Amino acid sequence: MHDKSGKTPIWRAIADALRSDLAEGRYGAGDKLPTEAALADRFGVNRHTVRHGISSLVKEGLVRTRRGAGAFVAATPTDYPIGQRVRFHENLIAAGRRPEKRVLALDERSATQGEAAALQMTAGDLVCVYHGLSLSDGQPIAVVESLFPSSRLPGMKAALRDNSSVTDALKVAGVVDYTRASTRLTAVRATATHALHLQVAEGDPLLRSTSVNIDDRGWPVEYGRTWFAGDRVTLTLET
Amino acid sequence: MHDKSGKTPIWRAIADALRSDLAEGRYGAGDKLPTEAALADRFGVNRHTVRHGISSLVKEGLVRTRRGAGAFVAATPTDYPIGQRVRFHENLIAAGRRPEKRVLALDERSATQGEAAALQMTAGDLVCVYHGLSLSDGQPIAVVESLFPSSRLPGMKAALRDNSSVTDALKVAGVVDYTRASTRLTAVRATATHALHLQVAEGDPLLRSTSVNIDDRGWPVEYGRTWFAGDRVTLTLET
Repeated sequence: MHDKSGKTPIWRAIADALRSDLAEGRYGAGDKLPTEAALADRFGVNRHTVRHGISSLVKEGLVRTRRGAGAFVAATPTDYPIGQRVRFHENLIAAGRRPEKRVLALDERSATQGEAAALQMTAGDLVCVYHGLSLSDGQPIAVVESLFPSSRLPGMKAALRDNSSVTDALKVAGVVDYTRASTRLTAVRATATHALHLQVAEGDPLLRSTSVNIDDRGWPVEYGRTWFAGDRVTLTLET
Repeated sequence: MHDKSGKTPIWRAIADALRSDLAEGRYGAGDKLPTEAALADRFGVNRHTVRHGISSLVKEGLVRTRRGAGAFVAATPTDYPIGQRVRFHENLIAAGRRPEKRVLALDERSATQGEAAALQMTAGDLVCVYHGLSLSDGQPIAVVESLFPSSRLPGMKAALRDNSSVTDALKVAGVVDYTRASTRLTAVRATATHALHLQVAEGDPLLRSTSVNIDDRGWPVEYGRTWFAGDRVTLTLET
């Protein structure tokens, strides 16, 4: 990743700058990137260096090149609003994407002290543990680990097995509506397991969200942690 | 970072799990970590492996060990609320921290097309560019790059030179109050420059926020990008 001096090579800085442009939505999927000549001009380097930077974006699947035609944006990050109502399926459809959820594991076990506190339960009470993968237009965008209080939501495990949408599963378990009570966000490195599911490299930056959803009486019904692939999702907050 | 098989070594997985506990605020600054024996039990490894994991947290400055007494939490992440009113100084004081801002560079130049769109100006209009470092209890937590519309805020450059608080500088330039109109969040790798300022390693995960602040008439007065050190800041959202 680095040359002998320990500095970022220029081609990598160019790739970073272009990745940043894509992450900010300056280009849409299918848009043509500026020509090699224009980029060489912008960064003050030769075309060979520009080509090296672009080829690393091609490897990441962000950009596609067509012989003689130039480089085009392959995929742009999905805008994902986080506010009082966070709904994966609705969010993605509103962003013009095809939502998909895959169950990785479903389990039931005792809550740890921290989990019990978040769900306003007693440590040792049973929680239903859901591990899932969220996809946008077929591309993995997030790994989800959600806990549901078994005593408050009997039948939740079966409901999660039968419904790809958490909102639908909660409905089956008796939660007609829920809202987001709190969200905590930070950036972390992808572990080997997250990297495998998200098809990113181990150590890649992930945006981790820790959240609590409550029902209409104010009881916590979901304590979730989500790891979003940094390059593929932009969380948006309109205030 | 990896052993020959390409897997995460166990000591690193332990360090990651403990770092995650710290990031979620399960321990406060000065709190004692569980004993080596307890951690060895929790992770199903020997004490030597636990010690290796803890020593990597010591190197990161997150944990301190005292001979015969065990390992203690050196620093916990700063909670940073992002809502309609985002104020660095107020946020940090509310979190019980000592806020500090350092000006890295102050400049004036023409706005690019994207910047002009965010600030509702015409491309080529002058913007005042502020590069700063935000510290919490003396530790760097974020690199800030903010743009202010020069035509709308005459004297902003001088005001930023004379005031360590952006809120105070905006007041001097005539903005009595401002609110957050939008925030976009993603996770990125630290560039060499960010790593230098934040005292983290190049490639470390940063949480990047792109935001627009508007005055009481709805005009954009600040277009800012902030890179928060993932290990040191947790953005919080109460809804």
